[in-house]
Amino acid sequence: MFQGGYLGKVLRVNLTTKTAVVEALPEKIARDYIGGAGFGVKYLFDEVPGNTDPLGPDNKLIFAPGPLSGTPAPCASRMAVTTKSPLTGAVGMSLSGGYFPVELKFAGYDVLIIEGQADTPVYLHIKDDKVTIKNAEKLWGMDTQITQNIIKQDVGDHNTRIACIGPAGEKRSKMAAIINERRAFGRKGVGAVMGSKNLKAIAIRGSASVPLANPEAFEAARKFMLAAMKESPVLYPEFSKLGTPMVVDATSAMGILPSENYRNTGVKDYSDTIGVAASISRNKGSEHCYGCPVGCTQLKLAAGPGYQGGMSDPEYETYYSLGSVVGVDQIDSIIYNDMLCDQYGLDTMSVGVTIAMAMELFERGLLTTADTNGLDLHFGNHQAVTQLIREIAFRSEGIGELLCDGTRSLAEKLGGNAGDFAMHIKGLELPAYDPRGAKAHGLNFATSYTGADHNRGYAFQEVFGIPVPNAYDRFAVAGKGWLTKWNQDIRCATTDCPTMCGFLMDMAVPAIAGQNTADLVSSASGINFTGDDVVRVGERVNNLARVFNISAGFTRADDTFPKRIIEETIPEGGSKGHRIAREDLELMLNEYYEARNWTQDGVPTREKLAELDLPEALALLTDRGLLGD
Amino acid sequence: MFQGGYLGKVLRVNLTTKTAVVEALPEKIARDYIGGAGFGVKYLFDEVPGNTDPLGPDNKLIFAPGPLSGTPAPCASRMAVTTKSPLTGAVGMSLSGGYFPVELKFAGYDVLIIEGQADTPVYLHIKDDKVTIKNAEKLWGMDTQITQNIIKQDVGDHNTRIACIGPAGEKRSKMAAIINERRAFGRKGVGAVMGSKNLKAIAIRGSASVPLANPEAFEAARKFMLAAMKESPVLYPEFSKLGTPMVVDATSAMGILPSENYRNTGVKDYSDTIGVAASISRNKGSEHCYGCPVGCTQLKLAAGPGYQGGMSDPEYETYYSLGSVVGVDQIDSIIYNDMLCDQYGLDTMSVGVTIAMAMELFERGLLTTADTNGLDLHFGNHQAVTQLIREIAFRSEGIGELLCDGTRSLAEKLGGNAGDFAMHIKGLELPAYDPRGAKAHGLNFATSYTGADHNRGYAFQEVFGIPVPNAYDRFAVAGKGWLTKWNQDIRCATTDCPTMCGFLMDMAVPAIAGQNTADLVSSASGINFTGDDVVRVGERVNNLARVFNISAGFTRADDTFPKRIIEETIPEGGSKGHRIAREDLELMLNEYYEARNWTQDGVPTREKLAELDLPEALALLTDRGLLGD
Repeated sequence: MFQGGYLGKVLRVNLTTKTAVVEALPEKIARDYIGGAGFGVKYLFDEVPGNTDPLGPDNKLIFAPGPLSGTPAPCASRMAVTTKSPLTGAVGMSLSGGYFPVELKFAGYDVLIIEGQADTPVYLHIKDDKVTIKNAEKLWGMDTQITQNIIKQDVGDHNTRIACIGPAGEKRSKMAAIINERRAFGRKGVGAVMGSKNLKAIAIRGSASVPLANPEAFEAARKFMLAAMKESPVLYPEFSKLGTPMVVDATSAMGILPSENYRNTGVKDYSDTIGVAASISRNKGSEHCYGCPVGCTQLKLAAGPGYQGGMSDPEYETYYSLGSVVGVDQIDSIIYNDMLCDQYGLDTMSVGVTIAMAMELFERGLLTTADTNGLDLHFGNHQAVTQLIREIAFRSEGIGELLCDGTRSLAEKLGGNAGDFAMHIKGLELPAYDPRGAKAHGLNFATSYTGADHNRGYAFQEVFGIPVPNAYDRFAVAGKGWLTKWNQDIRCATTDCPTMCGFLMDMAVPAIAGQNTADLVSSASGINFTGDDVVRVGERVNNLARVFNISAGFTRADDTFPKRIIEETIPEGGSKGHRIAREDLELMLNEYYEARNWTQDGVPTREKLAELDLPEALALLTDRGLLGD
Repeated sequence: MFQGGYLGKVLRVNLTTKTAVVEALPEKIARDYIGGAGFGVKYLFDEVPGNTDPLGPDNKLIFAPGPLSGTPAPCASRMAVTTKSPLTGAVGMSLSGGYFPVELKFAGYDVLIIEGQADTPVYLHIKDDKVTIKNAEKLWGMDTQITQNIIKQDVGDHNTRIACIGPAGEKRSKMAAIINERRAFGRKGVGAVMGSKNLKAIAIRGSASVPLANPEAFEAARKFMLAAMKESPVLYPEFSKLGTPMVVDATSAMGILPSENYRNTGVKDYSDTIGVAASISRNKGSEHCYGCPVGCTQLKLAAGPGYQGGMSDPEYETYYSLGSVVGVDQIDSIIYNDMLCDQYGLDTMSVGVTIAMAMELFERGLLTTADTNGLDLHFGNHQAVTQLIREIAFRSEGIGELLCDGTRSLAEKLGGNAGDFAMHIKGLELPAYDPRGAKAHGLNFATSYTGADHNRGYAFQEVFGIPVPNAYDRFAVAGKGWLTKWNQDIRCATTDCPTMCGFLMDMAVPAIAGQNTADLVSSASGINFTGDDVVRVGERVNNLARVFNISAGFTRADDTFPKRIIEETIPEGGSKGHRIAREDLELMLNEYYEARNWTQDGVPTREKLAELDLPEALALLTDRGLLGD
């Protein structure tokens, strides 16, 4: 049936019954969802009811690379994991790169679905068609780096690729990540779901290759893409050398690098201390994902007392979350603490923002040293950040238990007005773009189906000025609804589903716009997509995910911002005086819903669902009496 | 020429000229030295003059597995590295196991000689007959675990086996080790030599197998060995489950587990806190070297605040060096600090004993917080041990610089009577058997060609009662000269040269005594050895190494003990009241030299050198006018 790109196989592993079965991948699913996040959202919607306990046996983990993964298409070694997020209660979808994603394809599968719950710790070993559930008692408690090394030794092939959880996932921290190599399926607590299933790791080694339906057409599309990447004004000149840390200087200049739990954005210039120059000073070379000509990952080695020898590759978001948002301007501590998060299997972003909230509460006297095991939590105390990462990872009594499930949980545990300082949307901690100075970023955070997630509709137009410099006023409200819909659909369609690297979308958009994605996926798979078809897939996924979230209880009221974003203006810098007033939010939401052809309650209309061929979503909304039109 | 066992090739890599050549391995060298340490001592003697600067370009690193490495002989995945030690100035020879040793054989070489000095950091990549010297700038500063992972990624084959140095080796700490996986060529500063050559790592991947000259005879010898191992009273019942940490309880009971820089041996019972029961409580399963049916390595995971998540496999010697000898009875700190030493590439033994010396000096007021960067160095302060390991690894200004070259260097830097508390022989820090309660251990420490080295002539008779329980009075002086000669020669002949695991010798001696080694090596190689031939190889190596040391300036006066061992008695416990008085030492030395047919100055006689066919040694001693007879 499938001529290439897809292998046509879904591997379903049930940890309760200890069984593995291979199912056919329906061609209609490939056509309607392409792969990656599309497959994830579709299988989640079909198989996991909206009211499922995220940490119970009925939740599932759906791992899916895309049809381009494992082909010679550049930058396609990506994989989505989709689940119901324990952190948000909404769709939890995270992507990672490296080499693990293509290995699933090489083993012969398009999708891996993990369901059920093992009684005792296990790991999954996939070697082509040999699938084994192995005892992982001895790995329990080990960090992610040691775990990977020991499994490689145990299976006798160090070329095995592994994704695993660390202590944080085992302890079901809702900020736990799944780590492969030093890369992360980082956000939304996907590591906690893996931990709840007693699944320590997934180890894969495949020996097959991914066939191409039309090699000549594929090669033409690939060449077009490589040429377009070369034309990008940032991809090679800067990005390949600097990686995402280069964004620190840009957002500092714009006054949208959030500082000290968002209360001091713009007050202090972090570009001198943790910006490009400081970042380069710690560089030790770059690393590539499978098939990537860019190699944006910049290995960094910490220097100086306390952090010497620490090595990691912190992304821009980590310069924020373990840096500016906790008031830390010490680059070596960021590198070291990023390494700890990787080792323990924690999302640096949620962890940092949660620590930032604790710091503000501490400075306000809402937390005291009696709560913090004696730690001084003033902003800027990077040693305290190191210590708190450990407390969180091991869910230590007291402060670890208090912080380990994120800002929303911390606010609930403390009560009172603590929630005023919890910088999350739908439970997901805010990324490193202060919405008050980048309103399309903000609207994307407010409406993304995964919570405050910069990657589901990154407003590159407000940061990089691509494709047209200064075409967008980042402070403007009008027009951001339409822009956000476009960003979300195109991002989903051209990166999250196929699965291509998101950085290409942000920095070299022509290279992977709808038509090129269509050309690549069509020539790889033999299924004919037009550019419009591809973008429509993005819209379909965003709609289906929205309906899942509605079934999980989310409403328009959840498409909102933390109090501070609405009520307080940015105090200094390039975005001084800006906020997103309640009425601005409502205006943007109205426009966004209109652009999406959703009701003003934020519910997809019958018309839209019919147009997108989503009868299952229509049926669900009708059953629940939620279809507004 | 060679029918099996040996590949007949020596790979010589010059880092100054960036050249690699393959030379034939002379059959006479194989016949006279078997392999491993034998090859190392022979090539060192021939190619490195005794007065060579250990950290200069003229020193060499000679890596040699044995003829059984890579064959189906059990427990033979061992490799010796031989060099002139920067810590002692004598022969520096360290062995390690794991998988790295056999990989050199699989790549086609019996010996790898590294000479010269690279201008900038490099690593060596050996893939069968393809030998490449690669840039390692980006690896410089990285720890040993990260280094291995990055090289595997860089060379595109994770099954590559790697030995490397960490920051300690780069900084030329004379306690620096060479690490492969988490195993160490631990002692005598071999890592500093590698660092002095700007050689960060050696990465090897081979695809050949090691032929056998006489497979049937080999199989018979192998079966005999396996059967004998099963008969051992300790190897499987206990050792395979407990590993070397089981020795803590034994030496505690005997009162020879050195405590608090040897001043308090026997005063406190460490078996409750860091003995077998505590050790088992942290076990997470065992690991095997290539081809080993025992699997003595016990992975341990630290628990509790501060050390949680730390994972390593500390041996008995580390329970001593990071435990009892620094007054630490906290098992989790031992596991964690052992991990740090592996990561940074440090010998746990020398590091611990050096810290113990610093602690005693601190308690005596010879070091103050002004010297220690404010650290409280009282015995038992395990957090201070953690901190000092970091300071040593990075040779930090002040305390790091002071400690990083070991006890002898520390004594020299401080002057006065500091040397009274420096527990070393020939510069090598003492192992975990207080010589005062185990005199054959002591005499071996005093006379071993590598300094105070338990592994060059381990007196298992005094600890395990094998083969005959209680046959040896461990407090007795008489007879220990003869016993030590036998232990040193048999250990060298049956473990260090062939190269077999030393633990077999200690715990299952019949399995690998001379005749079985002869049967294995003969049937593997086609070179006929009798049991006597094999033991004679051990004697030959001990003599040639002795002459090297004489040429480096060592005399009878260096075959001695630290002042405390001679003058102070053990204060409490199972060896209370014992010491090795000066006259006892002299008696033992006299007997030992007599047993060896050396002069009473400790110089091999013409007769002995002729008997051992060592004309090169005879010539050297004659040239220098040192031949005493």
